[in-house]
Amino acid sequence: MTMLADLLASVFDRRRVRPVSARQSGGTLAELAHELVGGAGEASGLATAAAILSGYAALDDAGKGAFFRMLAVEMNIDPDKVREALDIYETTPSKDTYRDFATAAEPPRQELIRRLNRVPGATGALVRMRADLLRLGRGEPDLEALDLDFRHLLASWFNRGFLVLRPISWESPAHVLEKIIAYEAVHAIDSWDDLRRRLEPADRRCFAFFHPAMPDEPLIFVEVALMRGIAQSIQTLLAEDREVRPAEEADTAVFYSISNCQPGLAGISFGSSLIK
Amino acid sequence: MTMLADLLASVFDRRRVRPVSARQSGGTLAELAHELVGGAGEASGLATAAAILSGYAALDDAGKGAFFRMLAVEMNIDPDKVREALDIYETTPSKDTYRDFATAAEPPRQELIRRLNRVPGATGALVRMRADLLRLGRGEPDLEALDLDFRHLLASWFNRGFLVLRPISWESPAHVLEKIIAYEAVHAIDSWDDLRRRLEPADRRCFAFFHPAMPDEPLIFVEVALMRGIAQSIQTLLAEDREVRPAEEADTAVFYSISNCQPGLAGISFGSSLIK
Amino acid sequence: MTMLADLLASVFDRRRVRPVSARQSGGTLAELAHELVGGAGEASGLATAAAILSGYAALDDAGKGAFFRMLAVEMNIDPDKVREALDIYETTPSKDTYRDFATAAEPPRQELIRRLNRVPGATGALVRMRADLLRLGRGEPDLEALDLDFRHLLASWFNRGFLVLRPISWESPAHVLEKIIAYEAVHAIDSWDDLRRRLEPADRRCFAFFHPAMPDEPLIFVEVALMRGIAQSIQTLLAEDREVRPAEEADTAVFYSISNCQPGLAGISFGSSLIK
Amino acid sequence: MTMLADLLASVFDRRRVRPVSARQSGGTLAELAHELVGGAGEASGLATAAAILSGYAALDDAGKGAFFRMLAVEMNIDPDKVREALDIYETTPSKDTYRDFATAAEPPRQELIRRLNRVPGATGALVRMRADLLRLGRGEPDLEALDLDFRHLLASWFNRGFLVLRPISWESPAHVLEKIIAYEAVHAIDSWDDLRRRLEPADRRCFAFFHPAMPDEPLIFVEVALMRGIAQSIQTLLAEDREVRPAEEADTAVFYSISNCQPGLAGISFGSSLIK
Repeated sequence: MTMLADLLASVFDRRRVRPVSARQSGGTLAELAHELVGGAGEASGLATAAAILSGYAALDDAGKGAFFRMLAVEMNIDPDKVREALDIYETTPSKDTYRDFATAAEPPRQELIRRLNRVPGATGALVRMRADLLRLGRGEPDLEALDLDFRHLLASWFNRGFLVLRPISWESPAHVLEKIIAYEAVHAIDSWDDLRRRLEPADRRCFAFFHPAMPDEPLIFVEVALMRGIAQSIQTLLAEDREVRPAEEADTAVFYSISNCQPGLAGISFGSSLIK
Repeated sequence: MTMLADLLASVFDRRRVRPVSARQSGGTLAELAHELVGGAGEASGLATAAAILSGYAALDDAGKGAFFRMLAVEMNIDPDKVREALDIYETTPSKDTYRDFATAAEPPRQELIRRLNRVPGATGALVRMRADLLRLGRGEPDLEALDLDFRHLLASWFNRGFLVLRPISWESPAHVLEKIIAYEAVHAIDSWDDLRRRLEPADRRCFAFFHPAMPDEPLIFVEVALMRGIAQSIQTLLAEDREVRPAEEADTAVFYSISNCQPGLAGISFGSSLIK
Repeated sequence: MTMLADLLASVFDRRRVRPVSARQSGGTLAELAHELVGGAGEASGLATAAAILSGYAALDDAGKGAFFRMLAVEMNIDPDKVREALDIYETTPSKDTYRDFATAAEPPRQELIRRLNRVPGATGALVRMRADLLRLGRGEPDLEALDLDFRHLLASWFNRGFLVLRPISWESPAHVLEKIIAYEAVHAIDSWDDLRRRLEPADRRCFAFFHPAMPDEPLIFVEVALMRGIAQSIQTLLAEDREVRPAEEADTAVFYSISNCQPGLAGISFGSSLIK
Repeated sequence: MTMLADLLASVFDRRRVRPVSARQSGGTLAELAHELVGGAGEASGLATAAAILSGYAALDDAGKGAFFRMLAVEMNIDPDKVREALDIYETTPSKDTYRDFATAAEPPRQELIRRLNRVPGATGALVRMRADLLRLGRGEPDLEALDLDFRHLLASWFNRGFLVLRPISWESPAHVLEKIIAYEAVHAIDSWDDLRRRLEPADRRCFAFFHPAMPDEPLIFVEVALMRGIAQSIQTLLAEDREVRPAEEADTAVFYSISNCQPGLAGISFGSSLIK
C-alpha cells in the first residue's frame, strides 16, 4: 500500500517528501545507502533516498570522494557469487536461476542509483553527481569503474526515444535562455543582446534536446544560420551589423555551434555522436 | 555526425524515420536484430530499429513466439565469456576489465531493446511486445528468462521519478477517457454517462500516472470518492441517484477502485505496490 | 485605487467576487441596475454587477420579462436630451460637446451591459440573457429594440478578430465534445460512437470558433469530410461501415454540417454569414 | 458563404490574408475606408481592412494626421439625419425606427474601426493607431472628438471581464520580459540582471494584465515586494545586496511600482483607476 500513501501525499497534501538529513536520521550516508538497497518498503525508501541526495549535496569534495569510494568497494559485484550463480544457471537454466545470475552480476550500486532516481527531481541531481565523479575519479580505477555504472544507467534513461527536441527562441523562458548563455562553448555569448542576435532574426534558428525529468535544463543545443551560399567566416555570420535575410531565400543551413550543456552526461551517446 | 543528420531530419523535414519492411530490407527480423546490436551507426540504426518494430507488429502469434525464442537463445549471455571476463577483472580490476565483464554479463538482447527504444513512439510498442511475451511465454523457461530482461529495462524506464501524476476529469481528452472506460478492472464502467458520474461531480476525483514517452496512455488510475463518514457499500457510492455533496464537507477520501492499464507493465514495481 | 484592490483580491485571495443576492443587498434588480450605471466606484460596481447577474439567473420567465421591460423603458434614450446635445454639438463642435452628444445618444442600458461584463464569466451569462430576450421579446417592439443594443455589443465583442478557430478532434476535452453532440443541428449525433465516427477517421475534420472569454463553449462548428470525388448522398458519407481513406488521397472537402451553438448569438455576423 | 471561404483559408492554407497595398489596390486610404464601411461582403472586406492597416502603417506623421482628419470630417455623424431619425423613432417607436436612429447617431468611423479589427492581429495595430492620434491630435477639437470614438470602442474591448491576469517571473518568455524592461515607468530597470533581481527572489512578485488578442503585450503591470514590516525606503527595497526572505515570513505586500505599457490605452478605465 506504499504507493497509495505516496499518491495520497502527492494529491492531497502536495507536500514533497521531506528529506531527513543524514545526521538527523542517525546514520551515515553509507548506512543509508545500504538501507536503501536492502529495504523493501517503497515509502520509507523514498525518504531514505531523499536523505542520501540532500546529505550528498552538503558534502565537500573529500566527502564526495569518500562516498564514491564506498560505492565502488562496498557495493561492487562479488565474483564468487557471480561464478556460483552462473554455474547453477548454466546447469539448470530457468527463470529463477537466470534471475539469480542477473542479480549477482549487477553491482548493488546500480539498484541504489535507480532507487535514488525515484525521488522527484532526482534525475538532475544524479547527473550532477556523475559530473562530480568524473572530476574526482580521474585516474582511480575503482571510481572509473563506478562511472561505467552511472554511464550505463544514464545512457538508458537519456535514450534518444525519451528526449524531446524543442526550438529555442526569443520567446523561450528567460531561465532557460540564461543557460544557453552559460553553456555556449564554441562561440561565447557576451550578453542578452548578443543572445538575441542569435535567436530573433528570421534567418537564425536554435534547437535543444530536453529530457522530461529535467524540463528546464537543455542537454545539448545547436545554433543554425540559414544562408544563401556559404559564409566566408564565422565572424561574418555573427557580425552585429549584418543584413538579415528572409528565411525563404536561404538555400543552406549552417550549424555553426554545438554545445553540450551537462558535464554529467559526457560520453552518453546522444552527445558524443552529435559532437564528433 | 549521425545525430546531426537525425536532428536535421527532425527539424527541417519533419519526416518520421520511414520503417523499411523486413522483406524490403532483404533480411529476416533475426538478421535485422543482429545487425542492430552489432552496428555502430546511429542513423542507419534508427531505420533498422524501426524496421524491426514494424516487422514485429505484422507477425502472428507463431511468428512472435519464434522471434522471442530467437532473442532467448541467440541473444543470451555466453557463460564461458562471462567466466573469462570475470577472472580477468578479479585478477586485474580496472575500468577496461570491468567494462568487459559488464558487457559479457549482460545479454545482447538488453542492448537490442534499448536500441529499439530510440525510435520515436517505440516505448509503447515495447510495452505491448512484453504483453505478448507474457501471454506467449508462460511455462517456457527460456521465454520467462527473456521476460526478466524486458522487466528489468521497463522497471528502470518506468521509474517512479519519471512518472507524472495527472488528474483525470470530464475535461480530459476523450481518447484518454475511453481508455479509462476500457481499463477499469474493478467496477466496470458501462457507458460515457457512467464515466461522467465518476468524474464530474464535485465529490469525485480520478488520478492517473503517465510516462512522458506515452503521453496518451494512462498506466494506472485510481477513482476516489470524497465523503462524510464511511460509505455503507460500493453500491451506495456508485448509485445513479445519489446526492452530490460539496468537496469541502468531506472528511474521508475513499479509493474505491484501482486499475492497472498496461498488461505489458505487469510486475513493474510502481504497479504491484499500488495494487497490493 | 479600486483596481488595485481588485488585483490584490485576484492575486492573493483567489476569491471570486461574492455575489450579493438581490434580496440581501436590499434592492430590486431595477434599483441595482440604476446603481450600477450611476455608480463610479469600480470595486463596489463589481459586487453590484455580480448581484444583478445572480439575481437575474434566479428569475422565472415572468421576472425576466419584467427585467427586460424595465431596461427597455427606464434605460432608454431621452429624445429631448439627445436633441439638445445635438444642437449644442452642431453649433459649437468640440471634444466636450461631442462627448455629451454621444452619451445622450446611447441608451444607458448599453453601459449597464458593458459593466455587467466586467464580472469574470459574465460574457456567457450575457449571451444566455440575450437568448432569453429573443425568446420572450418576440412581437414586443420595446424588447425588440432592446435586443438591438444587446446585438450591437455582442457583435463588437464577438468580432472576428477576437475569435479563435480550433480543431475539434477525438483528443478534445469531453466537456467540449458533449456540446458538439448537443448542438449538432443538421445531422443529429446519436451517441459517443457516432461522434467518434465523425471526428477520429483520417478523412474527417471538425473545426469550431471559440471566444477567449468562453473558452469551453464552441460558438459555431463545421464538420468536414475529405473525399475523392463527390459523395452521392449524405447517407453514404455518414454510413457506419464506410471505408476510411487516407487524407492525402482526397481532392474534395465537403462541409456537410454547420451548427450554430449559441442561440444568444443569433444574427451576429460571424454566424449569419457562415450559415447563409 | 464568405465566412466559409475565410474558414477554408484559415484551415487548409494557413495563409494569412495578404494585405493589398493602398497603391496596388488603386485607391487612397480614404477611398478604401469608405469602401470598407459601405461594403457588405466580409471576405473582400477583410482584404480591404488589411490594406488600410498596412497602408496606414507606412504613413508618416503628416499622412497619419490627414487620415485622422478624413475620419473626423467625412465619417462623422450627420446632425440632420440624426434629428430626422430621432423624430421618427419618437413618433413611432419600433425595432426598425430604433435601428435607424442608432445607426444615424453613431458616426460611421466607429463601424470602420470595428471592421478593421476583424483582421487577425489588428487589435494591437488599432491601439498603436490611437497612440498616434493622441500624440498628433492634441488641441485639434475634431481629432479629440475622434479620439472619443476610439476610446469608446477600446474601453468596450478591453473590458475588465476580457482581461487575463498573469504572473510575470524569471520563467516568462524573454520577448515579454524585454517589454517589462522597456515599459517600467516608475523605477527604471537598468539591465537583465536588474530585472532578474525584481522577479526571481522568493520575496518578489510581478503581475500583468493581458488581452487575448495581444497575448505577448502586457497592458499594465505591478511589481510587488513581500516584506516583514514596512520598507524604510524604495532604495532599501531595490538594493542589490539586500537579504532575501522566505515568502512565508512576509506580513506585508508593497506594490512599489505600477506601469501602464500601452500609450494607446491611456484613459481606458482599467488603467486610470489603477494608476490613480
